[in-house]
Amino acid sequence: MSGTLYLVGVGPGDPELLTLKAVRILAMVDLVAFPQKPGTQSLAHAIAAAHIVPKTGLLPFALPMLVDRSPAQKAYEQLALELSGQLEAGKNIAYLCEGDPLFYGSAMYLISRMEPVNRIVIIPGITSLGAGAAAIARPLAGRNQTLKILPAPLDDQTLRNELQQGQNVAIIKVGRHLKRIKTLLEQSGLMKHAVLVSHASQPQENIVALSHYDGDEAPYFSIILCAREGE
Amino acid sequence: MSGTLYLVGVGPGDPELLTLKAVRILAMVDLVAFPQKPGTQSLAHAIAAAHIVPKTGLLPFALPMLVDRSPAQKAYEQLALELSGQLEAGKNIAYLCEGDPLFYGSAMYLISRMEPVNRIVIIPGITSLGAGAAAIARPLAGRNQTLKILPAPLDDQTLRNELQQGQNVAIIKVGRHLKRIKTLLEQSGLMKHAVLVSHASQPQENIVALSHYDGDEAPYFSIILCAREGE
Repeated sequence: MSGTLYLVGVGPGDPELLTLKAVRILAMVDLVAFPQKPGTQSLAHAIAAAHIVPKTGLLPFALPMLVDRSPAQKAYEQLALELSGQLEAGKNIAYLCEGDPLFYGSAMYLISRMEPVNRIVIIPGITSLGAGAAAIARPLAGRNQTLKILPAPLDDQTLRNELQQGQNVAIIKVGRHLKRIKTLLEQSGLMKHAVLVSHASQPQENIVALSHYDGDEAPYFSIILCAREGE
Repeated sequence: MSGTLYLVGVGPGDPELLTLKAVRILAMVDLVAFPQKPGTQSLAHAIAAAHIVPKTGLLPFALPMLVDRSPAQKAYEQLALELSGQLEAGKNIAYLCEGDPLFYGSAMYLISRMEPVNRIVIIPGITSLGAGAAAIARPLAGRNQTLKILPAPLDDQTLRNELQQGQNVAIIKVGRHLKRIKTLLEQSGLMKHAVLVSHASQPQENIVALSHYDGDEAPYFSIILCAREGE
């Protein structure tokens, strides 16, 4: 009988934000796979490590981080082949995903390359947005308000259109786009309550009012949470 | 020394989607408070019940569910007073919230009524959106796509504006607004891949392609997930 591939959301960084379901799956699988940038430690593995039993196989997946996408695409294809083979051999596998597997996660690149015959189960995880809102104790949205999640690399015109109608906005993947985003938020009247949260739930968590942040860049996994005044 | 109020996200329904942090807090507090509609069982309490130790005090909070908001506002004020008193007496309290406390949760009504001196800690939870996406194994959003969360009770014009620019859209609080939402999604070209998910992660979880759903209403806590074709 072939095995199951579990895509396990391990949450934003604090190992206590793992779910009971993730912990149960981690202790039960034969193999744990996780993405790892060459030369760095895997955050997903670090979050989950305490719950992986010694006999479980580890499969770090070296993910090329290049502007050219084709090496990464090939790497996902090879990973899908490797995991399919293990599933056919009856192994159960957990593939670790930071945050939630289906919320701007790389798991989608893997899912789309698996065979329809492969059994895939997804374990949702706490997102960096949830952790960021908790860190600043402010609602992401409430009542009948809208909430928009906007990746910072989007072009100015798209962002401007969305921000103009924006009530509650979360901007993700801020990184080197910070300066541009600050200008757009000012133009859209969303700067006043904007907060920059980096590494939410992790020991190096940092919270700063965006209007008081002088730098032109922020860590890649920073988010900006803002709400239109009076909402 | 005064106590701490923990707003604990208990997730979308599956008790296994509690976080380790929520479980630790539940076992440690002196008092567990939770909203309960008169005459019904509290879902938040049911999700968490296995982790509440027998000596812990229970404080069901009768939440009036009326169109007129003032009875609910008064009820939250009384609850805030009651909890403040318990905190001053040194008690630690968990207030249970379905899903995530800061994602369209009622916890915001409580936070805004607590005194600045009260120590409040927020434990994020898995949202019904995360559970819904996991149930249908489809990304909420990826890459540099936008994601909009739109409450169904919003007026047609606002929804139409947002849907026209919408790439990935999650519609929440569907309930009796289903018929209207179906029309708006058809007009906006988002119907084809729209999926209605009810009670995600719960035993009565139900998934149906929206175009195949004949009813004019859906359970209140249904969500619709849709994505523009080709994205």
